[in-house]
Parts: sequence; structure tokens; C-alpha cells
Amino acid sequence: MAVRNLAAVLHGPLDIRLEDRDIPKPGYNEVLLQIGSVGICGSDLKYWKYGKCGIFNLEKPMVMGHEASGTVVQIGPGVKHLKVGDRAAIEPGVPCRTCRLCKSGKYNLCKDIFFCATPPDDGNICQFYKHSADFCFKLPDNVSLEEGALLEPLSVAVYACQRGNVTLGSTVLICGAGPVGVLTLLAAKQMGASCVVITDIDEERLDFARLKGADFTIKVNTNDPKEFAEFVTDKVGFQPDATIECSGTDFSFSMGIHATYPGGSVVMVGRCQGNTSIPYNEAATKQVDIKGLFRYVNCYPTALEMVESGNIDLKDLVTHRFDMTETVKAFETVDDKAMKAIKVIINCN
Amino acid sequence: MAVRNLAAVLHGPLDIRLEDRDIPKPGYNEVLLQIGSVGICGSDLKYWKYGKCGIFNLEKPMVMGHEASGTVVQIGPGVKHLKVGDRAAIEPGVPCRTCRLCKSGKYNLCKDIFFCATPPDDGNICQFYKHSADFCFKLPDNVSLEEGALLEPLSVAVYACQRGNVTLGSTVLICGAGPVGVLTLLAAKQMGASCVVITDIDEERLDFARLKGADFTIKVNTNDPKEFAEFVTDKVGFQPDATIECSGTDFSFSMGIHATYPGGSVVMVGRCQGNTSIPYNEAATKQVDIKGLFRYVNCYPTALEMVESGNIDLKDLVTHRFDMTETVKAFETVDDKAMKAIKVIINCN
Amino acid sequence: MAVRNLAAVLHGPLDIRLEDRDIPKPGYNEVLLQIGSVGICGSDLKYWKYGKCGIFNLEKPMVMGHEASGTVVQIGPGVKHLKVGDRAAIEPGVPCRTCRLCKSGKYNLCKDIFFCATPPDDGNICQFYKHSADFCFKLPDNVSLEEGALLEPLSVAVYACQRGNVTLGSTVLICGAGPVGVLTLLAAKQMGASCVVITDIDEERLDFARLKGADFTIKVNTNDPKEFAEFVTDKVGFQPDATIECSGTDFSFSMGIHATYPGGSVVMVGRCQGNTSIPYNEAATKQVDIKGLFRYVNCYPTALEMVESGNIDLKDLVTHRFDMTETVKAFETVDDKAMKAIKVIINCN
Amino acid sequence: MAVRNLAAVLHGPLDIRLEDRDIPKPGYNEVLLQIGSVGICGSDLKYWKYGKCGIFNLEKPMVMGHEASGTVVQIGPGVKHLKVGDRAAIEPGVPCRTCRLCKSGKYNLCKDIFFCATPPDDGNICQFYKHSADFCFKLPDNVSLEEGALLEPLSVAVYACQRGNVTLGSTVLICGAGPVGVLTLLAAKQMGASCVVITDIDEERLDFARLKGADFTIKVNTNDPKEFAEFVTDKVGFQPDATIECSGTDFSFSMGIHATYPGGSVVMVGRCQGNTSIPYNEAATKQVDIKGLFRYVNCYPTALEMVESGNIDLKDLVTHRFDMTETVKAFETVDDKAMKAIKVIINCN
Repeated sequence: MAVRNLAAVLHGPLDIRLEDRDIPKPGYNEVLLQIGSVGICGSDLKYWKYGKCGIFNLEKPMVMGHEASGTVVQIGPGVKHLKVGDRAAIEPGVPCRTCRLCKSGKYNLCKDIFFCATPPDDGNICQFYKHSADFCFKLPDNVSLEEGALLEPLSVAVYACQRGNVTLGSTVLICGAGPVGVLTLLAAKQMGASCVVITDIDEERLDFARLKGADFTIKVNTNDPKEFAEFVTDKVGFQPDATIECSGTDFSFSMGIHATYPGGSVVMVGRCQGNTSIPYNEAATKQVDIKGLFRYVNCYPTALEMVESGNIDLKDLVTHRFDMTETVKAFETVDDKAMKAIKVIINCN
Repeated sequence: MAVRNLAAVLHGPLDIRLEDRDIPKPGYNEVLLQIGSVGICGSDLKYWKYGKCGIFNLEKPMVMGHEASGTVVQIGPGVKHLKVGDRAAIEPGVPCRTCRLCKSGKYNLCKDIFFCATPPDDGNICQFYKHSADFCFKLPDNVSLEEGALLEPLSVAVYACQRGNVTLGSTVLICGAGPVGVLTLLAAKQMGASCVVITDIDEERLDFARLKGADFTIKVNTNDPKEFAEFVTDKVGFQPDATIECSGTDFSFSMGIHATYPGGSVVMVGRCQGNTSIPYNEAATKQVDIKGLFRYVNCYPTALEMVESGNIDLKDLVTHRFDMTETVKAFETVDDKAMKAIKVIINCN
Repeated sequence: MAVRNLAAVLHGPLDIRLEDRDIPKPGYNEVLLQIGSVGICGSDLKYWKYGKCGIFNLEKPMVMGHEASGTVVQIGPGVKHLKVGDRAAIEPGVPCRTCRLCKSGKYNLCKDIFFCATPPDDGNICQFYKHSADFCFKLPDNVSLEEGALLEPLSVAVYACQRGNVTLGSTVLICGAGPVGVLTLLAAKQMGASCVVITDIDEERLDFARLKGADFTIKVNTNDPKEFAEFVTDKVGFQPDATIECSGTDFSFSMGIHATYPGGSVVMVGRCQGNTSIPYNEAATKQVDIKGLFRYVNCYPTALEMVESGNIDLKDLVTHRFDMTETVKAFETVDDKAMKAIKVIINCN
Repeated sequence: MAVRNLAAVLHGPLDIRLEDRDIPKPGYNEVLLQIGSVGICGSDLKYWKYGKCGIFNLEKPMVMGHEASGTVVQIGPGVKHLKVGDRAAIEPGVPCRTCRLCKSGKYNLCKDIFFCATPPDDGNICQFYKHSADFCFKLPDNVSLEEGALLEPLSVAVYACQRGNVTLGSTVLICGAGPVGVLTLLAAKQMGASCVVITDIDEERLDFARLKGADFTIKVNTNDPKEFAEFVTDKVGFQPDATIECSGTDFSFSMGIHATYPGGSVVMVGRCQGNTSIPYNEAATKQVDIKGLFRYVNCYPTALEMVESGNIDLKDLVTHRFDMTETVKAFETVDDKAMKAIKVIINCN
């Protein structure tokens, strides 16, 4: 085993340093993994740029990264479903398992959850990392470490569709054709959605969404949410059963409320800036439920099955790859819109 | 049978006139009722004062009233469960029965629903009124016509609790101790809520709520929703599983979001003014679902059973009674806060 | 318009006669259709052979047929979504629309439902037939009348999967590879089932199921339900989340209970003979819910969308076609196992 | 601390011996309790009489008892909500917390659950017993240790009502007026059931149920399940939304299926003998779901709240009390029908 454990540690805004950390020792129900691939997502970018994301603030140096996969190099006591040499996707949150929320199947809402690269918990852009074994999912031979890392955002997409009650015959409106929007499109189709519409301000993103199976792609052409909602529903010929907001804009939040069918849902995957002004009476009168989303719960197995079966192809989402020593360059690539990055992967191996 | 049918008709803001209307003839599955009691609610008041309520505008003269009960005086073909002389509560909405929403059990959201005293549909502050028989619920001997009229707001309360998933052991926060707030308290208790907290700005309303069984009553003591949420949860010792907002204020909407337990619901019975600014990320991160409420669906039988069994006592909610010829005075009483009216009833008989 | 209306009327066991009936006149919300295709199903066969099916008995001559489609030739008042010349699939049940079950979205359980070719209601193996317009679904150009008729059994399959909570990532065991079993396989796949296993006693049926996408097909190789359940779960490597029993045998009912994963469902599409002996404690200890199925509710639109989109291909299910004058021969074909019929269609046009 | 730990150990049928056991040491998230009260239930009786119950067999000597409460005498690391001296009810099952079922909120179905006095796991008719702290619920001052022990069967009752979707306005039929039947009656009433009917073969048990609030009590007067179902529904004037079978007889299982309203549930709390013959087609055609019950999940807090609030009074259920040294006599009392025991409690203190 290696004698060092290089890790990408965030010390403050725009201050990522490669440092050596101890190699942890797996305890009961834990495994030690040699990290393979780690994806970078929007929240990682916010920590890097601003030292904070949403309600979380960097308070001490923190290893970055939470969309990861790796190879098992050591197993702790009590581990049965993994052995040394297995490749695994790492679900980054490990809850307390004893609170009321954990015991009722809502472990994503556990107040004491450990979650990679959410302050103060360390993430896994590093060489060696230990994790609870039951949150490591063995990858079959036909699923790569890179795809294993992408199960994280795919789990968000799966959960968003579940929260929106997407099922056979559903019509779905997705706002935002970034990585999560496109993954949500793929998940919605697999759940039996009969028609998926996707909106964005960027023509190229919409082209990619069309390539990945969107039935309609519509470029935002106004600043008025109600007007755009009418434009969209007129064009597609229906009000969607579920709107899944992946852009994080107040505009799309309001637009989704106007567009959605009575009794439907607006699921907020994106986060808005501070307080949000919405046409609430419109939602109330139509009984359109407004549902937030916090990560995912019990979605990794489902996400993995879809990739293993070939029903969802994640390969063309990865546009850029970097070695761990190029971590800063990787973050710059995500941040630079001119790079047209969809998904950026860091290789830690 | 009477040869005239006096009705209270709204012609414009503050312009209610008593006029004679034809006595309608019941068709298939319809009954003609001699109206007994009619309650006045907040939406009635808005039509009277402003000629509009929410998204609905008075466009032509309209008979007022939608919280009604009466005595069957004639039955149309196909009516089996009612006979002449039966007293009945009148559920005021009759949906199209053929659209997708009606067929899936969401008839309250039907776009073609007839609804008493929602423009342009006539209500039932009148002497004779015909209605679909299956939306008339026979009153047993121990339930009065006045109580029959009050099943309407009680149905709102029942539905609010259903939307909030109130069940055995739930903790519930109700914002606003007006008639709907108090009825929601009664319904929540009957559903098994273990603790119900109610807030208001009016001490007397809180006193009445305490009398009706509230476990905690808390007077609003700040303009800051987050601060008040913390004050409330500290005082009662928990975050409520469901918050049911019955005050129609942005303050309480935001307060409810801050107060509610992760995975819970904020049900919006009240309507806010135009656009509403809410701490959305707070709701999203806790996965507190925001749910509107539009009237009720299949709640009349349940409301009636609770009154019939004596589990809910509605009698002391009625503070003022008027004859139909005093309709204007009745509306003035509702409008005048100094009158301290809880529920005002018009007697049409 | 034609001056006669030839109809296939069942007078008693094995006694179908072609007779002239009046051409009905469409009333409010009704359309008159010239019938196109009508499929024959297992219940039709039972009426023909025995004059009864389940709890229903033929009491007077009855027009046969309930899996039908046709072309609109006349519309009654109030019909908006159909016009003369439109082709439509006919959902064969029209409920009372006023009972508690109808109003809560369970119209399939309405005690007063009219249902084609369930005694005493006439079916639609005839030339002209009138029906409630909202239970007629307009066929787009790319869906044939034959496919329109097959939406009936496809709706059963969709509902069976809904009852079994089939969703993204579900594992499903289907007992019986007849038409409904195969349609259930297709529906389950569209709902995102990750693995579908199908069992039968007939090798050819299993071959057809494999062709239509079954992940595993397993021939019944024992009379012991528990032994076969273990054989199946060993072979596929999991206990199914849902078992959908389409064979109507006690063997498969028991087998499904033994095989299903804790917390899962056994959905009974088939009907057993009289009383049924099941390993009940096994179901109870695992909390495997046993759910019956009675027809379908709100499934036609979903079934139609799947066929319209091309996601489900029904064409190769039709193995035999007959003219209405050959109705008896059509029934004989269904009954003769040597004919290897999957789906038999009668053309009424 | 005491130097010995007397325990009631079952060595085989009718062979309970009082033996000394080591005092266990609480580990992480564990507490050591001095046991107070322990109730005896039907499964305990079966182990004592036959050495087995359902699918479980005594394979080695086992401490009896699983309905227990006690006083905390030592706390392990990580325990925050309990301190030495606190009295607590003990939920007897501790699941693995890492399997798919545990993580989705169905820990009662966990295959690796530890459960007191289910072979091979030791129970708590003993002086000192250690348990996971999050499965120990602190008793408020107004709830006795005896009531704390009774939270176990009350949790079964709560879960049975939840499984049966009992809610405001539900009508409920309970078969069997033993302790669990009566507790189910109490729980159903608290959930808002508008009418609860209870049946039994024993007049005295029915009298007790009437005293505890049953709206109707009906003595079984025939061997024909269908006939009795009709007798019951005629007498009460409705078909129940939920039937909760607590007698463990095939007769009541079948009766419940015949009696229940379309779309309702039959919940099987009792266990039948081996295979069970049921009128399955009746259940299927009405879509009456048949649901088993295995213990309870997340019900202790709810049960405790009801007792703490005084909404449920458990005191008069306890008919006999014994000291731990009289354990055999306690079991004999439960077994002897002439003793008319409702609930027998062993005092271990």
C-alpha cells in the first residue's frame, strides 16, 4: 500500500492545495478505497470560488470532492458484500442511523449526516478514503469508475423524478439543460414519461438535450415567467404533470408554477438566491405542490441498475478529464463558460 | 309551494339587493331545497366589498352565499337517498364529472365546476335552490340546519389536515385563530394530532382557541418570521410535522417554513397578496413541501360524521344570526372587527 | 347511415347468433360509433362456453365484446373532443359518476357501472354502438383500429403494474405468458422495471415473451409452489419487488407469495377457482400485500400514449383475424389450444 | 450495582428456570436498564407451551419476555437523550440499520434484526438488560413502568391501524376482543374512526370492549363467514373501510373479506394455522387489499404520546401481576381461560 495519501484541500476561496494526509483505517462496516474518478459539480465550484454554498460555510481546510468511485484496498470487520479489488461507487452521505428521520427512511434529512465535502466533512479528491461499506455499491464489469462517479448526479435526477411522481404516461417540463437537467431527462424517460420538454437560455445545451432524447427543447425568449409558461404550454399542447427546476433561477421557479397542470408538482432541484418571490396563489388554486429536494435517498442502486443495463448512457456527458495534480485547472474549466464543459472528471489514481 | 323566491343578489361592490328569482325545477339527479341557514365567509366579504376575490371577478349580478343547508321540497328523477322533507347540507361545488381531474378523484380542481357564488355561478342566499342530489348530504335528527351550513368551512379544515398528512401523533402548527383556524384545530385533534399550537395577533381569538382545545396559543410578538418561528418552536419544544396557514399573510407563510420539521408540510389555506416572497432554500433543504388548498374533495361526509357523533361541537362558533332581509347588516357585522364575530349566519327560511 | 345493425348475441352456452338490433341514438355526452375491431379475451370465452364468468351469469341474450374501437358517425350534444370521422378506442365501462367510489377516483369499483358484455349490459361486437364520449379516446393517425381495441388488455396490464408499485428499478415476476402476461411485461419495462422474469408451462409462450423483452423466462418444473419459488429466486438472483399473477392458478398465487421480497406486492390479475388456499403466514410475516385487480381506472390515456409513441408495439400479438360473420369461428379459435392463438380480432366493419 | 442478574430462561416446553446471568456492559449508543415490568403475550405463551411459535423454534435456552420497561442504571458512549435514573419503555427489536429494508424505513422487516425472546435472541424477564438507546423511550412522570411495558402491544395496534389506512371518518371492523383487539379499538378511535365494530365469541370480552368505547359489539353466531359478514354489515349499516383481524382464525379472515368495503383493506394481525383457504375472488373483485403485519415500525413514540396525553388509558387492561420469581405462575394464568386474564404483568424489580 502507498505510504502517502495526496489530497486536494480547500483552504479558502480559490485556494486549493495538494497535501499529504494520513491513510485512514477502516473500522466496523467500513472499507478503505483507492479513489478512481471524482466529478465536479456546481456546489464544489461555489466552495472553491466563495468558500461557501447555501447555508454551509468553509470553517477549516477541507478535502474537496463528493462524486466519487474507487477500488477497495482494505475491508473492516463485518463487511460482506465487498472484497479487496472490487470497484465501487461511493454514496457520499452516511447518516446517524438512529434518529427519527433515519429510522423512517429519510436519511437524507438526518441532521447528523456525514457528507463528503460539505463543511466540516472531508471529501474524496484524494488517493485513499474510507467509507461505510453499505454506502459503497459494487460496480459490475461493464460500468467504469467514471460512470460510477456519475451515479451521484444521476441519483439526484432519479430522486427529483420520484419527488415529482413521474411515472408511466407523465408529461415533464425540465428547466435548465445542464448536467442535472439532462440526467433528469434520462431518468424521466426511463420512468415512462411520455413527453419531456426542456428549456434553457443556451442553444448548445438544448441541442445536447435533444440528442439525449428530449421531445421538445425550447429556448427562453422572454423575461416574463407567465408569458413563457404560456408559450411553452401552447407549443407542446399540454400542461406538464411535473416541472423539475434545475436552473436555480426565480424566473424558472415562477414559470414552472404557471405552467404545471392542476394537482401536479414543481420540484426545486436548483437553489434560488435568498428569498424567492413566487406567484403563490396560482400554485394554491391549482394545488400545484412545491417540493424541495435535498440530495437523494436510496437512489444509488436504481441509478446503478440503469447504467448497468445500458438503459442510460452516461459516457458522452464527460467532456473534460484531469489528473488530480491538475485539480485547480479542473475547477477553472468548470467555471469558464467558454470551455463548454458538461461534466469534468478528476482522476485520482 | 311559495310563489316567489327572494334572493340576495350582488350587483357590484357594496351593492346587494333583495330580488325575486324564478323557482328552479330539479332535473335528473337534482333536488329543490328550501334554504335554511347560510354562513358568510371571508371570500363572500371580498366579493361584497370589492366585487372580486382572488382570480375571480363579478361580471354580472350574482346571488351570494355558498355555506348552506336546506330542506328538500322536490326531488328530480333518479334521486334515491333523499326525499321531500329531508334536511340536507349542500356541498356547493358540482363538477363536470367527465374530465381527467374528475375521473381521478380531484373534482375540486375541475375547470368546469359549478360553484355557488363564485362568478358567474349563483349562490344560495335565497329561498329556493336546486342542486345535484349527490352533493346534498342528509342531516340526521341531531344535526341542525345551522350546523349543516357550517360543514362547508369544516370541510376546508378537514381537507387542510388531510393535505398536511395529519395523523395519530402528529404535531401541528396553525397560523390564525379565525373560524377556519379553529375548525382546523378541531379536525386535527380528531385525526389524532398529539399537540396543536395556534398563533394569532388577537388575544381574544387565542382565548377561544384555547377553550376549543389548543395545547398552546401564542400571540405574534415580532415582525420577523424566522425569529417568531424560533420563539414558537422553543416554547413548544418541537418543530411541527405540519403547519397549516389560515391567516393569509406572507409573515405566517414564511414563519411556517422556518418552523416546520424536515420532511413536513406547509399547507396554505389562506391566500397571500399577489406575489409572495418566501425563504425558499429553507424549505428546499428541509424538504418541507408547500401545498396549496382549493376548497375540498370528498370531505362533507367526514365532516358530517364528526358533528353527528358529537366529536366536534360547532354550536359556539356562531356569534351572530340574521334574517335574509338583513343580509347587508350581516355582511357589515362580518366586516366590523369591533363586532368580534366568529361566524355569522343568515336564516333564509 | 346503414339501415341495420348486425350484432353477435349470446343466448346461452355455445349459442351465439347474429341478429339485427336498432341503431341507438347518442344522447348528451355520447357518440355513435361504427365498430371497427373487437378483441376476444378469456372472460368472453367463459361466457360463450359456460354462460357465466366469475360472479356474473348470463340472464338474457347479450351482445358480446368489450375490447373495441370504432369510427365516430354521430355525436350527441355536449361532445367537444370528438367529431364525425374520428377513430376512437372505447373504454368499455361507464360508471355512475355520483357514488362515493366514483367521486374518489375509483370508478372501476362503482357498483352501478355499465360494462360492455358483462351481464346484463350489451357489448360491442356489432356494427353500431353508442358510448359516453369521455370514455372514447381519439386515435392518432399512427394507431390502427386493431391497436385501439388492444388498449383494453393493455390497460389491464398498466393497472396491474400500478397496483404492484412497479417503478424505476423494480424487479418483477410475472406468472403466465398469455396475452395479459406479455402486455404486463411490456408495461413493466416502460415503467422502468430493471428486471422482468416470466413463468409459464408452455415453452412457446415463453419464447414469445423472450422475444418481447423478458429478461428471464422460466418453465414451471414442479407442482410445489415453494420449491418453484426457490428455483426462480435462485436462478434470477433476487426476490421480486412485485409478483403479478396472470395465470389464474392457485399454484402461481402461492408461488408468488413465497417468491416476493419483504414489503412487496402480489397482484392477482388472474382469478382462482372458488376458495383459494395460500401460505398466508408467509405473506404476513414478510408483509407482502395481496392485491386484487378489477379492470382498470384512468389507464386508457396512458396505454394509448405508449402505443402512439411507439414505445409499445402491439402488432405482433394479433395472430388471427375474422369477419363479424365468423364470430363463432373466432371463439373456437381462442378455445382451441392447438391454434396457438395469442390474440384474436373480429372485424365488424 | 447488583452482583447478580436473575433471569427467566426457557429450556424447553413448560421448562422455565430462574438462572443467574452476567450483567451486560453497555457499548456505544447502548444503555443498561434495571427491568421494571414485563407483559406476557400470546407468542410468549406458545414458546412456553410448545417451544416454538410460527416459523421460529427454540434451539437453545432463551431468556423470555419482550414487552418491557425499566430504569436506566448505566449509559454507554454516545447516549444523549437518556441519563441514569430515567425510566424507559424498551422497543424490543434492534435492526441491522444497513440493509435496504432498514434504509428505506421498513426496519421491522430487516432479516438481521435482534428481537427480544425470538429465538435465538434473549428477552428481558431479568433484572439487568442492555439495549440500543435509540430504541429506549423515556417515560414522562405520568406514565408508569407498567404502562411502558404495554406500549409494545399498543404499538402493534397503532401499526395495524396505519396498515389499514384508518383515518378521520373511517369505519373499522375488529375481529377478536382480546388485548390486541381492544388496543386496536383504542388506537382506531384516536385516529378518528367514526365507527368501530368488534366481534368475538366471548360475551365478557365484548362487554369489556363496549366499556372501552366500541360502537358495536357482535357475538359470533354462525360458522359461515359470509353469513356472519352479512349479519354484521346489516346490523351496523355499512361495509367497513378496514377490517383488522386479531383472532387468528380462518373464519374471521374470510369473514373480513366478505364484509369489507370495495377498495378497503383486511389487515391480518392474527396468524392462521398453516395454509389458509380464503374467498379470494371476492377480495379481488372488490379490490380489498390483504395486508399482513409484522410487529411495528416507528410506532413507539406515537403509542407513548397517546398514553402520556391521557387519550388512551391502559390501566384497566392489567388483570394480574406477579413477581419475577412467580414467572411460571404468570404463564399458567395467561394459559388458563378460567382466569379471565386480559393482561398479565411480571414485576422484575
